[in-house]
Amino acid sequence: MHAVLKINCRDRPGIVSSVTQLIFEAGGNILDAQQHREKLDGQFFIYVKFDVTSLNVSQTVFDERLSALAENNGYIWSLIYSDRRKRMAIMVSKYDHCLYDLLLKHVYGELAADIPLIISNHPDLENVADHFGIAYHHIPRGADNREAADKQALALCSENSVDFIAMARYMQILTPILLDAYPNRIINVHHGFLPAFKGARPYHQAYEKGVKIVGATSHYASEDLDMGPIIAQETERVNHGYGPSDMIRIGRSIESKVLAEAVKAHAEDRIIVFKGRTIVFD
Amino acid sequence: MHAVLKINCRDRPGIVSSVTQLIFEAGGNILDAQQHREKLDGQFFIYVKFDVTSLNVSQTVFDERLSALAENNGYIWSLIYSDRRKRMAIMVSKYDHCLYDLLLKHVYGELAADIPLIISNHPDLENVADHFGIAYHHIPRGADNREAADKQALALCSENSVDFIAMARYMQILTPILLDAYPNRIINVHHGFLPAFKGARPYHQAYEKGVKIVGATSHYASEDLDMGPIIAQETERVNHGYGPSDMIRIGRSIESKVLAEAVKAHAEDRIIVFKGRTIVFD
Amino acid sequence: MHAVLKINCRDRPGIVSSVTQLIFEAGGNILDAQQHREKLDGQFFIYVKFDVTSLNVSQTVFDERLSALAENNGYIWSLIYSDRRKRMAIMVSKYDHCLYDLLLKHVYGELAADIPLIISNHPDLENVADHFGIAYHHIPRGADNREAADKQALALCSENSVDFIAMARYMQILTPILLDAYPNRIINVHHGFLPAFKGARPYHQAYEKGVKIVGATSHYASEDLDMGPIIAQETERVNHGYGPSDMIRIGRSIESKVLAEAVKAHAEDRIIVFKGRTIVFD
Amino acid sequence: MHAVLKINCRDRPGIVSSVTQLIFEAGGNILDAQQHREKLDGQFFIYVKFDVTSLNVSQTVFDERLSALAENNGYIWSLIYSDRRKRMAIMVSKYDHCLYDLLLKHVYGELAADIPLIISNHPDLENVADHFGIAYHHIPRGADNREAADKQALALCSENSVDFIAMARYMQILTPILLDAYPNRIINVHHGFLPAFKGARPYHQAYEKGVKIVGATSHYASEDLDMGPIIAQETERVNHGYGPSDMIRIGRSIESKVLAEAVKAHAEDRIIVFKGRTIVFD
Repeated sequence: MHAVLKINCRDRPGIVSSVTQLIFEAGGNILDAQQHREKLDGQFFIYVKFDVTSLNVSQTVFDERLSALAENNGYIWSLIYSDRRKRMAIMVSKYDHCLYDLLLKHVYGELAADIPLIISNHPDLENVADHFGIAYHHIPRGADNREAADKQALALCSENSVDFIAMARYMQILTPILLDAYPNRIINVHHGFLPAFKGARPYHQAYEKGVKIVGATSHYASEDLDMGPIIAQETERVNHGYGPSDMIRIGRSIESKVLAEAVKAHAEDRIIVFKGRTIVFD
Repeated sequence: MHAVLKINCRDRPGIVSSVTQLIFEAGGNILDAQQHREKLDGQFFIYVKFDVTSLNVSQTVFDERLSALAENNGYIWSLIYSDRRKRMAIMVSKYDHCLYDLLLKHVYGELAADIPLIISNHPDLENVADHFGIAYHHIPRGADNREAADKQALALCSENSVDFIAMARYMQILTPILLDAYPNRIINVHHGFLPAFKGARPYHQAYEKGVKIVGATSHYASEDLDMGPIIAQETERVNHGYGPSDMIRIGRSIESKVLAEAVKAHAEDRIIVFKGRTIVFD
Repeated sequence: MHAVLKINCRDRPGIVSSVTQLIFEAGGNILDAQQHREKLDGQFFIYVKFDVTSLNVSQTVFDERLSALAENNGYIWSLIYSDRRKRMAIMVSKYDHCLYDLLLKHVYGELAADIPLIISNHPDLENVADHFGIAYHHIPRGADNREAADKQALALCSENSVDFIAMARYMQILTPILLDAYPNRIINVHHGFLPAFKGARPYHQAYEKGVKIVGATSHYASEDLDMGPIIAQETERVNHGYGPSDMIRIGRSIESKVLAEAVKAHAEDRIIVFKGRTIVFD
Repeated sequence: MHAVLKINCRDRPGIVSSVTQLIFEAGGNILDAQQHREKLDGQFFIYVKFDVTSLNVSQTVFDERLSALAENNGYIWSLIYSDRRKRMAIMVSKYDHCLYDLLLKHVYGELAADIPLIISNHPDLENVADHFGIAYHHIPRGADNREAADKQALALCSENSVDFIAMARYMQILTPILLDAYPNRIINVHHGFLPAFKGARPYHQAYEKGVKIVGATSHYASEDLDMGPIIAQETERVNHGYGPSDMIRIGRSIESKVLAEAVKAHAEDRIIVFKGRTIVFD
């Protein structure tokens, strides 16, 4: 069993030392440690993953020590123990490529998360859920019942102790009901290279503009459509011979890739959001 | 010696046949032939490169035959003989990376063009021009003398029989004086992934937005800044550790690459512009 | 309905013209035409895809004309009508990632082929076949019954009018029984960047060597293991932090990609094999 | 001014803590810290870059403390102060692309090294050295005077206090005279994707094999030609239309890139060699 400690504070000497000493004295063994300084802001970030099976104090005691250290030094921190695997809900519409990709990567053990349920505004993909043995909930969602639908989805997530949500081409704008319940814990995939080509039919926009490269972007969902913190991006070369349908075909591949990359990073607690940008430790 | 024939017309049977037969009957040997159909517009494009040393008729006769064929069939066409290498002017400001890259690729024989002169609004890079034995013209250019400067540049280009211009990070918006004299024959490089990050300081924009990939774009210059037809694009992966200066460093590499790719394609007559997009045969 | 005509001959004037005229006179409309000259060998290759619904002669008459033209000019040719979709068998072992990828791309309509059956030397993936509604045949295969197993597989392929075979990580060396029945029509995927890392455990080899990029290769199967003509390759960046298991994970993605790319090209009749290399028209 | 401390030891708890505490107590401020565990070998590596301007002890005292800590814990360590920029010699033959690339990146401040001299077995590139204001030494080198030539080169390197050497397409196999004087401090670029295509004319080998991707590799030079620890690799897509000369053209770009990447990493002390592989911290 391990834990991930993430700290954010003003940059100054002694941060790494204070944290690693705390862990060492408690008997923890550091498995991975990364840091980042945001030079323009004078801000310091640290990510430490450590083995807790060898801790010589209880988690409660360790948390108290950490809390005291953080208070003395002005650290903003989060500490997550891996005693419980994260639980991810998948929201999906009718396109199945991101869904298959996540479910297969889950089977291969690539994602540090369990998937207790799939929520969709359409009944179409229930057979995919069945094939992988995952519960499928059909919640119709139209212009007139967005809030009710999101409340229903939220209730399901709560019942299933869901930690975060992957929108695998859900194609719907969430209401604050879900967004506020899962701040920076809902991952969306946009089928375009943000910040270009926001909104609808981005591949058609890309075709009209005559771009030579198309992209896809995964990001935390926010109320501003397609504007939340970017987590991962991927591009692929196209040329004049690619019509919108070819771009959509290529898009399936890169959308799946960026969504899975973001889900993997989130599930492994490797992301910090700061000033609308993400720090993604690797 | 070869010639490049490019034709654009409504799609229908017999186009390729009519053109290749014309060439064959005149004794030409086809070296390369490519075509493209723009399905959404029902438009057909053909590119044929053929050896003309074996022509059994004069260029004048061949041109007349081609002209008659085109008139009968509604072909829009251009025919360019390679008896004369294209001549390219380079416009540059203070950044030298695209300049070095073009001059070296010229030395390596990668560009089907001669470079009779370099024009700059600053005196700084004259030593680079000297090193490669190319004439350097310093034409100061400010808010108050843009037109005069462009007239002077145009006069130099005319004197030197310049066919097209590469803006190797010239960092100036051209007036119609140059743009109208060289329509779709002035190639600019934008240090950002268009259509995102138009205008100034695109790498700073990219940093602020927290993108995970940066790009560069070469395109034909137009009066709308950074809006002309895109010729080539390139992207490179970045992460949270890349500040603006790192993006600028990476940018040097991809800017050079897309500009040279566009210059190469233009010099080899492989580009057709249609509806604001480019068809770049390869 | 369309047809694909591929021709291979010594390079000389008039080839494109003779072929396109033949098609035009028979009322065919050229949809795509590409050519390639192998300079070092003086060899010329042409690929023409044309609409045959508008043909003003029967297929028999057209074939006779083509045959006569080819004989007069020394053309080696193949002509394939699309009146019948190609039929592909998939051979698979226990790894399912390439299998899922092919089956999904088939559902999305990306592959110009039907998939009448899946053959495996293990029973494990039958449920995947069931999910996609495809027949699954389990043919055990060991050191002592390779030929018998291949005969059984060949019989199944014959019964199902199979045109070509995709080895989706089949992990077995085929005997001439299958290889000779399907020359240059069996596509294998090797989980390494050929010609480096032939044979077993290529990712472990790559790890031991400390490479910074891993690759995957799809190629026509041959008796020399991993030595047939290469169709597609893909690479992905790794670093010292990637152990063999990470390379295997990345490999799943690039193996799927190169196999699907090869299958797509083969199904669309876009490949010519010449001197152990492939020409893949696009 | 900063210092880079690299440590290598058996993995166990307390390593990071012990090192960061040592630095903190001496008043140093950690600028960057990375670590790597080689799971298969149970080996642990740490890289710490720290500001030494604020040290409250002398370098001598700090070194003593570090030495004592390392001895007690079995750390293999190196500590390099940046009070003196590294000095790099460039060895080059007749191809100038890697040379230009390194010299320009030096001008742009991308390489943490000075370049006191260029050594070549040909006189051709002296004008490039002149243009950049760097001393050029022509040392002819044939089958009969390799050792003498390397002695002469070594003497020049010694006189110029050279720390490491970049072989910018030097195209010569070094003798132990140089290799032993600069172990893991001579960086070569091979114009092929190692371990495939070792030896001469790798692009011709790649063409013959019909690969769809070509690569370049930078590595530490060793007596086994093209077999030293790999530092960086890069690939680029090709197709059947690329003859050897096209591959050579593409090669210029990727060779320059991998060599500069390796030089940058080495100059910044970010590389550890272990079991013939490199750990390249970033």
